[in-house]
Amino acid sequence: MVESLIPAGYTIRPLMAADYDNGVLDCLKGLTTVGDVSRLHFEKLLAYWDARRDMYHNMVIVDNSGLVVATGTLLVEYKLIHACGKVGHIEDISVNENQQGKKLGIALIRYLLQVAKDLGCYKTILDCSEHNVGFYEKCGLKVEGIEMGYRY
Amino acid sequence: MVESLIPAGYTIRPLMAADYDNGVLDCLKGLTTVGDVSRLHFEKLLAYWDARRDMYHNMVIVDNSGLVVATGTLLVEYKLIHACGKVGHIEDISVNENQQGKKLGIALIRYLLQVAKDLGCYKTILDCSEHNVGFYEKCGLKVEGIEMGYRY
Repeated sequence: MVESLIPAGYTIRPLMAADYDNGVLDCLKGLTTVGDVSRLHFEKLLAYWDARRDMYHNMVIVDNSGLVVATGTLLVEYKLIHACGKVGHIEDISVNENQQGKKLGIALIRYLLQVAKDLGCYKTILDCSEHNVGFYEKCGLKVEGIEMGYRY
Repeated sequence: MVESLIPAGYTIRPLMAADYDNGVLDCLKGLTTVGDVSRLHFEKLLAYWDARRDMYHNMVIVDNSGLVVATGTLLVEYKLIHACGKVGHIEDISVNENQQGKKLGIALIRYLLQVAKDLGCYKTILDCSEHNVGFYEKCGLKVEGIEMGYRY
């Protein structure tokens, strides 16, 4: 069971509407700009994801008090190549700064890798900055290529 | 109009069921393993994508005879970060080898970048090998990070 990788005192579960009050936005602020997300926008996005549950797997790790201390998403893409194969994309991984060193990040990544495997993905990929390569190698991933982007 | 980037004698349009007979699988074989995709599997996948038209934009470039000479996908991901922002993922770009040098690849990438912009994406990303960086820089993209992967 990959749940067993989660340290004692913490639980991993799907993101839910109540997490708007449990600190999921604060957790994501450790990663990047979150901006103005109202409760209504949050709930609409959750409903959108929920209607596409085959593709979006948004997980949170909560502590004993129910506070979100880490979050991450697995997006499953349905392709034509590799005999209509599926690829997992790991997105938006964030662990609260005051929770680092507890191996929550590695547990979360391994959990998402296992979810992708269980869903039949032939590979899972993610993009990261140069200085995070070592962390993801510890999670079992290998450098595969270059991420390129165009910003509007 | 970004369609105007497509060279004379070629047309860009969404992938359709008839493309099973128009060479789309052969075109993709230039990119990677396609494997055994029956007509039924192809049509089922197209129906799946069609039901998620907000996310999957599968395009082909065809020549005067209707043959698929290039193909590429824009996958739009709905995120929580960046005020419920959207990110475009360019996937599975392939141009037939005997059609290279006609700027079909650059036209296809620019077309997909424009579709993503029109859909409100704040950025579009793709992963490529080191030796394709120069091509994507010509398309206007910049190196953003490292792609890492886990293969099952």
